Amino acid sequence: MASVDASVARQSNDGKKERVVILGSGWAGYGFARTLDPKKYERIMISPRSYFVFTPLLAGTAVGTLEFRATLESVRRLGLDYFHQGWADDVDFARKTIRVEANTSDELGSTTTTKALKQGQPPNPSSGTNEVEPGRGAMFEVPYDKLVIAVGSYSQTFGIEGVKEHASFLRDVGDARKIRMKVLQNFERAALPTTADAERKKLLHFAIVGGGPTGIEFAAELHDLVREDLSKTYPGLMKDVAITVYDVAPKVLPMFDQTLATYAMETFKREGIAVKTEHHLQRIRPDEDCQGCLKLKIQEYGDEEVGAGIVVWSTGLMQNPLISRLGSKEFTMGESGASDNVVILQQDKRTGSLITDANLRVQVVPAGSKPTEKKETPESTTLPDVFTIGDCAVIPESGLPATAQVASQQATYLAKQLNKGLQDNSNKPFKFRNWGTMTYLGSWTAIHQSSADELKGWAAWVLWRTAYLTKSMSIRNKIMVPVYWAISWIFGRDISRF
Amino acid sequence: MASVDASVARQSNDGKKERVVILGSGWAGYGFARTLDPKKYERIMISPRSYFVFTPLLAGTAVGTLEFRATLESVRRLGLDYFHQGWADDVDFARKTIRVEANTSDELGSTTTTKALKQGQPPNPSSGTNEVEPGRGAMFEVPYDKLVIAVGSYSQTFGIEGVKEHASFLRDVGDARKIRMKVLQNFERAALPTTADAERKKLLHFAIVGGGPTGIEFAAELHDLVREDLSKTYPGLMKDVAITVYDVAPKVLPMFDQTLATYAMETFKREGIAVKTEHHLQRIRPDEDCQGCLKLKIQEYGDEEVGAGIVVWSTGLMQNPLISRLGSKEFTMGESGASDNVVILQQDKRTGSLITDANLRVQVVPAGSKPTEKKETPESTTLPDVFTIGDCAVIPESGLPATAQVASQQATYLAKQLNKGLQDNSNKPFKFRNWGTMTYLGSWTAIHQSSADELKGWAAWVLWRTAYLTKSMSIRNKIMVPVYWAISWIFGRDISRF
Repeated sequence: MASVDASVARQSNDGKKERVVILGSGWAGYGFARTLDPKKYERIMISPRSYFVFTPLLAGTAVGTLEFRATLESVRRLGLDYFHQGWADDVDFARKTIRVEANTSDELGSTTTTKALKQGQPPNPSSGTNEVEPGRGAMFEVPYDKLVIAVGSYSQTFGIEGVKEHASFLRDVGDARKIRMKVLQNFERAALPTTADAERKKLLHFAIVGGGPTGIEFAAELHDLVREDLSKTYPGLMKDVAITVYDVAPKVLPMFDQTLATYAMETFKREGIAVKTEHHLQRIRPDEDCQGCLKLKIQEYGDEEVGAGIVVWSTGLMQNPLISRLGSKEFTMGESGASDNVVILQQDKRTGSLITDANLRVQVVPAGSKPTEKKETPESTTLPDVFTIGDCAVIPESGLPATAQVASQQATYLAKQLNKGLQDNSNKPFKFRNWGTMTYLGSWTAIHQSSADELKGWAAWVLWRTAYLTKSMSIRNKIMVPVYWAISWIFGRDISRF
Repeated sequence: MASVDASVARQSNDGKKERVVILGSGWAGYGFARTLDPKKYERIMISPRSYFVFTPLLAGTAVGTLEFRATLESVRRLGLDYFHQGWADDVDFARKTIRVEANTSDELGSTTTTKALKQGQPPNPSSGTNEVEPGRGAMFEVPYDKLVIAVGSYSQTFGIEGVKEHASFLRDVGDARKIRMKVLQNFERAALPTTADAERKKLLHFAIVGGGPTGIEFAAELHDLVREDLSKTYPGLMKDVAITVYDVAPKVLPMFDQTLATYAMETFKREGIAVKTEHHLQRIRPDEDCQGCLKLKIQEYGDEEVGAGIVVWSTGLMQNPLISRLGSKEFTMGESGASDNVVILQQDKRTGSLITDANLRVQVVPAGSKPTEKKETPESTTLPDVFTIGDCAVIPESGLPATAQVASQQATYLAKQLNKGLQDNSNKPFKFRNWGTMTYLGSWTAIHQSSADELKGWAAWVLWRTAYLTKSMSIRNKIMVPVYWAISWIFGRDISRF
């Protein structure tokens, strides 16, 4: 294995700055790297993908309202001291070294769903992908002075048969492309003169599993594409189009209060989007009688399977395999190497997330301790120089959800703390400020809720678009996103399949 | 096989309009369909892809100067009476019926290179692709009153070993995407700390085979990407980047006169692009010692192979397999069914193109006639209601090249003839007007040559961009193309790999 001392191999380090290695390029990792002061620290990022994805706009790109590229920010533009395109495979906390597997595959798909399969990790292998990975990439080591673990989460499929093989995910730009292709392809298939009526209905049934904001927004965007654009191209097919959202819970959009959730359901009803709550998907399999179709077994329907042209999976997160691996590793903390100093990372019992203190520092417990039950925490101590933020981190009893907002605020908090120079114990703790939650509902309407107020309808839609614009990161995309929106509005969405 | 009477199955035909079926959606087919009067004719298009590609801008999209979508026009926007996404598999001229194979594959690659392999057709199977096709699509029949064959040409690999497996083509938007991915991937691979010096040099050697406008423009665009954008991201790699254009002929850009060709070569020299004329590629194979590298055997270098990270193939055209199949088919012409009326399509002996008269009507000769030698044409007659335009057509002794310009003018001519109502024999013949030829040379310079004048340098570059804008077809793209150009100019090209 090649060992890389980045400060020697590369130009930047003058030997004075501490080397901060960031694992991940999502909301947490990218946000942290942007805010960390390059004059004070050497910044090195390790991520399987060389870009940040502005995830709230993915549903829009999947239907062609936006160009894929407008949702991306290249990490290369951060002016990092070094970027390694690869997966952090393991961390040696005693030697302060990360083992990296280079990602040199030509694979275009989601990097948040493929890796678990490849490693045979984690314990639950159903981490959703249709892709087969080629052999492993080259391995090399990267040393760190400070480490920020921001690897995020993977899609959780709960072991449901056929999900990882046949469902479509919506977590990376490659996923959005695949969904777009499949939707347009299904319309072409349905339009063929050789396609029978029953087949056509199956091809044009779009099923979405999961009634959170991602699933609801995808349903809404798909509805807009069908109503505003495809209806002109395929007028004869409109009667066969159906969009259904399935959820196991008794209501969708649980983060919104009853008024807004009801408004959302009424909007969907008017748009003809069916919402089936308390429905349990049990299996997805291909339909042998209909090329491109799937059959969904749903508990409530007994043996009668539902046909669909696509199943978009947008429910459930699971730990990144790196987190599972790190959590099961015993190591010796400190210089002494005394055997009574053997520890393991403290993990949340239920989710497997890494537990941090209020300053987002990773906590360790003596080896042999059981994973934490909420009330009976074993004596934990801080692992020096190791931090974790975003979906893979949890501050006990904080009750913070695994969302982009939390990841983004943690990233900024931690970078600013480091920029100020950490003073142990005297640091002010991380505090989450709820900016509110928004969901697009189609037909130029949205809902917005924050602690202060609620908005629904067209005004919320304006806020939704404005909020996305101000949060879009680079000037390039601040210009491009409204340009694309305007172009789609004037000329309709592009519906070429390529 | 399903038989489709389009006039019955679909709404449009009122029983009075003649049904014109167009095979192909390229410069010829798309241009013809745009110009044909929908009030006079029912327009039906059959093409494996649902869009027209503005090919001169493909090289720009391959390096990220332009968005892929800006080079596409959806055929759906033509308001055709019907569009069938599929390949014309065969034509029964006696029954005036086309057999179509539906294209329902999810394949993103070039549709101009995959089909030949799939059919085991034509005689020379080296039609360039890295793709494996799944099983065949559903077959159905479409009847016609008038038929316009505009299926274009495929890439010709001259049977050179490894070209179809390992070279990259640049004929469709899927090709451009693949090239883009490979180029950016090679830079990431080269930047890995585990990559040795020799390997890096191979990864960053970009070989282009063919010194026509496509190859030269791709080399120029690639040079701009490297110099203007990648140099900022990977400054340490610049010393290892090399771009080489190989051609078998003694000079490149043979369609330009000596002054302009010399100017082009001087520009390339200044930009550090090597041009190797009279070099004969004999084999491409993967380099086992370097993931992602290829080895090129070149006749002039003996046994020493040249390493390269990518080989872009932009030389040689061959007939579409449909043309080969039609050319070998005997059929009975006319109503009588008399056996002395058995004919075959007249083909050019050298290229296999379908021979037309000056009105672009397909010609037939008695069955058993040999393919035409230039001077000893057998007695040919016109096959009623069948026309051919673009790369697959040739007017004997016209000397017209297989270019977008010729295809485009033929399309407009033929559609206008039909709009006026054809009067046999009294029609004015097709006449090609040379609008001039332009090639981009990188660093904001171009060359332009027409019968009237010559231009080189920056002024030609302005003309090059302006000409592309005025020829870009939809208003959408007339707006989007300059927007993309401006965005690339201000912010640099996007270099995210996805």
